[in-house]
Amino acid sequence: MRPVRLSILVKLANAAVAVHLLRLFTYFRSSAAYRLRIALNLKGIGAESVYIDLRRSEQHSPAYLQVNPAGLVPALEHDGHSLLQSLSIIEYLEEIQPLPPLLPAAALDRAFVRSVALSIACDIHPLNNLRVLNYLKNDLAVDTPGRNRWYAHWIETGFSGLETLLSSDARVGRFCFGDMPTLADVCLVPQMANAERMNCNLAACPTLRRLAANARELAAFRAADPELQPDAE
Amino acid sequence: MRPVRLSILVKLANAAVAVHLLRLFTYFRSSAAYRLRIALNLKGIGAESVYIDLRRSEQHSPAYLQVNPAGLVPALEHDGHSLLQSLSIIEYLEEIQPLPPLLPAAALDRAFVRSVALSIACDIHPLNNLRVLNYLKNDLAVDTPGRNRWYAHWIETGFSGLETLLSSDARVGRFCFGDMPTLADVCLVPQMANAERMNCNLAACPTLRRLAANARELAAFRAADPELQPDAE
Repeated sequence: MRPVRLSILVKLANAAVAVHLLRLFTYFRSSAAYRLRIALNLKGIGAESVYIDLRRSEQHSPAYLQVNPAGLVPALEHDGHSLLQSLSIIEYLEEIQPLPPLLPAAALDRAFVRSVALSIACDIHPLNNLRVLNYLKNDLAVDTPGRNRWYAHWIETGFSGLETLLSSDARVGRFCFGDMPTLADVCLVPQMANAERMNCNLAACPTLRRLAANARELAAFRAADPELQPDAE
Repeated sequence: MRPVRLSILVKLANAAVAVHLLRLFTYFRSSAAYRLRIALNLKGIGAESVYIDLRRSEQHSPAYLQVNPAGLVPALEHDGHSLLQSLSIIEYLEEIQPLPPLLPAAALDRAFVRSVALSIACDIHPLNNLRVLNYLKNDLAVDTPGRNRWYAHWIETGFSGLETLLSSDARVGRFCFGDMPTLADVCLVPQMANAERMNCNLAACPTLRRLAANARELAAFRAADPELQPDAE
């Protein structure tokens, strides 16, 4: 049996997926949508974009609540099925199209990659969501400097733990896990973009900055950049 | 070949795991530790408990920061390897010991179960963590009624979306997915316990209350109850 090149397998797998309609419900500034754009690009899976403008509260429209009753972006519709939660959707993409992999093969390594992703997705990002900042502003009367301190606090706290973890783990290479971009990098890059946009102090995170910069050199990450999306301000 | 009964496979798998030392770093009140206690019980995996008292800031001790540089519970040590983030650890347990499964077999169903789990783990729980409540109190001078409103707001908002999702999905049965407890129930029960403890308004969530009550009838969930843990107040 002749060996089959990875790129051919990926193309074949892509062709299998392409017959089904994929629709990505996205907003350029949403970090979770950014993750999903990167993952789709890395897998080479095409999806039609449906733009949900959070500034106009389109996530609360009856039409979108049919897709996601929680009124949050992103969501992915695959062949009529609504899929919710960025990390759940990326695991789904990994299962229906394993190549190129976004998780390593060994269970301990998969746990390592997932833990980096979840450290961002659970411990940093939810605290700085637009709806949370709006609650601070409207319900708790926290002023702009106070909201900016809140934002920076959770990024700097979360990044501090991650920096210690990633600067001391032998599995870290060009990317968070060796030399292949994984779910960890998919989560790190959008969070780093937020940190930079909000002028967080990143002096204590040289490893995270290096890893994010390496990932951003890849076309799949570059094309997912918020500023390059058609719905960007 | 004779068919092998599920219970025998589970016992064999357990025996394979038992030769390695498992240590669970836990705190009775931590919802994320509660999830992990349930998952270990459902899998029938024994682990030595190491109690990290958050009231005494033991999560910031040099010894614990060696286990988890982020200073958060829970963590699981398996054969000397530190595993972090409750959902990542549960996926790990699922991979090293697939039976009984905490995720369904089909990719679409796995995505459904994971999305319910992540709706709780990302959209509700992180906002009500002890460290967040402490920030509201100490840095933003939010008084106790204000903090209680914050707490209830994120649970009621998150539960509202989940109630719509779970009350309308045909896959929901006795538990969040059919008649087997999954990762979704593992996350729902600790969140429901918090909601009750904080007197949240759950009138609009009959489906979630039913599902949580059904899961709590199982011994694996009952034994994981915070009030039954040796480190409970």
